Amino acid sequence: MDIIKLEHGSGGALSRKLTEELIYENLKNERYPELSDATILDIKGQFAFTTDTYTIDPLFFPGGDIGKLAIFGTCNDLAVSGAKPLYLSLAFVIEEGFPIADLKRILSSIRRAANEAGIRIVTGDTKVVPKNRGGGIYINTTGIGTREFRHRISGSRIESGDAVVISGPIGSHGIAIMASRESLPVGPQVKSDVAFLYPLCRNLYQLGEDLKFMRDATRGGIAAVLNEAISDTELSMNINESSIPLGEKVDAISNILGLNPLEIANEGVFIAVVRGSRGERALSLLRETRGGDRAQIIGHVDSAYPGKVILETISGGKRILDFPRGLMLPRIC
Amino acid sequence: MDIIKLEHGSGGALSRKLTEELIYENLKNERYPELSDATILDIKGQFAFTTDTYTIDPLFFPGGDIGKLAIFGTCNDLAVSGAKPLYLSLAFVIEEGFPIADLKRILSSIRRAANEAGIRIVTGDTKVVPKNRGGGIYINTTGIGTREFRHRISGSRIESGDAVVISGPIGSHGIAIMASRESLPVGPQVKSDVAFLYPLCRNLYQLGEDLKFMRDATRGGIAAVLNEAISDTELSMNINESSIPLGEKVDAISNILGLNPLEIANEGVFIAVVRGSRGERALSLLRETRGGDRAQIIGHVDSAYPGKVILETISGGKRILDFPRGLMLPRIC
Repeated sequence: MDIIKLEHGSGGALSRKLTEELIYENLKNERYPELSDATILDIKGQFAFTTDTYTIDPLFFPGGDIGKLAIFGTCNDLAVSGAKPLYLSLAFVIEEGFPIADLKRILSSIRRAANEAGIRIVTGDTKVVPKNRGGGIYINTTGIGTREFRHRISGSRIESGDAVVISGPIGSHGIAIMASRESLPVGPQVKSDVAFLYPLCRNLYQLGEDLKFMRDATRGGIAAVLNEAISDTELSMNINESSIPLGEKVDAISNILGLNPLEIANEGVFIAVVRGSRGERALSLLRETRGGDRAQIIGHVDSAYPGKVILETISGGKRILDFPRGLMLPRIC
Repeated sequence: MDIIKLEHGSGGALSRKLTEELIYENLKNERYPELSDATILDIKGQFAFTTDTYTIDPLFFPGGDIGKLAIFGTCNDLAVSGAKPLYLSLAFVIEEGFPIADLKRILSSIRRAANEAGIRIVTGDTKVVPKNRGGGIYINTTGIGTREFRHRISGSRIESGDAVVISGPIGSHGIAIMASRESLPVGPQVKSDVAFLYPLCRNLYQLGEDLKFMRDATRGGIAAVLNEAISDTELSMNINESSIPLGEKVDAISNILGLNPLEIANEGVFIAVVRGSRGERALSLLRETRGGDRAQIIGHVDSAYPGKVILETISGGKRILDFPRGLMLPRIC
């Protein structure tokens, strides 16, 4: 058995073999004591619930793979929502012909990422689709986390004078994916920034109600996140382009490829909006945490251009930074 | 805008339009008050957690469609686990070129099914994959339900003398899918049995600890479920083939197609194992509930053939009913 066959998804003997001997064997833990239709869990108080499907191409890339991404990505959505990641479901859609060796590699990566994040995979599903009806493997993870941050995290809480903070340098994930997809000769140094963001977010929870908004800057990059934060309000954001930290080689490679780093997906960076007087405190909370040493205040909130994000460019001009338009990179996460 | 483009999955302006104006607009409710990375929820006590991805082909079939299936299927996994379905996440993987009209039809079906089941969709995700990398649309739903049944539901609780109960007639889902996939001239009368099973399951919860095992008979049919229940035990099941209720035309069409009805997927039937002395009570609890009028006791547990399911055939013989082998129907759910 070296490739996935349609029969692996049939629900019969071969399905059972795949699920029990390969998948469950790699992932079982004390919270997932048996293969069953559903797993019984317990949580005290409020929790956060989120879902994401990962369809990235290629499946393996410098700095990570779809397995690591599927674990950290969903944990990050919980973390920026004020919750400590606890439990994930894991659902595969595997394309007929997919190498079992690749599945094993992904399962190992999932196990390592789950251990690093301190979360438990507690339920799962595996489907097999015919050749040319899938992308090798797609992974859905749906997560549950206990709510730790007691205030609402929402663009509607943003006020004039607030500071806009970024947790780290942008662009590496998109550039790493693009480079490996197109076999660009950028060398193996450009690695995806895929990372577990909960330790950084948790540090910011200390700001209490002065922490108003957090979101990780994945598809659409920080351009999308900044606009999502502000577009339904009467406020605007003033972003100083020169203060935005860029990943290594991101500037040069973006130029060659004609990409805007602000629109490139990241998997280890988030934007936070905090009360203006707490900007420096937010920065020091981030910088004292692993992965946060390049955090920056990149702008502030005012009401000059309601609903808009204004970019003060490096060349000294001003322009509207809109939601990304056009195709950008498909299958980036 | 009449088909899905790759750009709909980019995270930019068009993604936002699709998500906000079409998907969220159809599904928002008081528990899903805004589009955010995660939704904050509250549950008292224990809950069940389950995930399933639906990859069925065709997407629309007599008696239902992928949307209805994705809602009821995951609710059913909660119900047979002893939990009342409460919340679902909803994640789409849509293939480039998919008609927006079909997406609207599926969203309407999802909304109707969610209302019928009394559950709330509370978080979601939408990805777009390139042409020939998907199956029109794949849907993952991951569900949370409050635990109502206080005893363990597990094959390990089955004892000799227990009764094996089926909630209704088998085979209709698989036959309906097969007939519409192959354009068989079986007429529109054969409809999938896709149904919300919680009301039937809840009635059985009244049996308390005398209810030992429940599982819906989807992929692999009742052959797979009966084997899953018993294969890791020292017990065997004696199943009386003539007592198994069949859906309309299932027998005739299975014969023509060379399918075994016991291996055909169902989406509205479950198997329960109860204490032998409570078999008749289980039957009356099922029969008094809508959809349970054709419930039957189909066999009992003994220890004659450890780990095996024995079928007493209609012709009077005995044979081992094993886990299904071979391809059967791919993309059946």
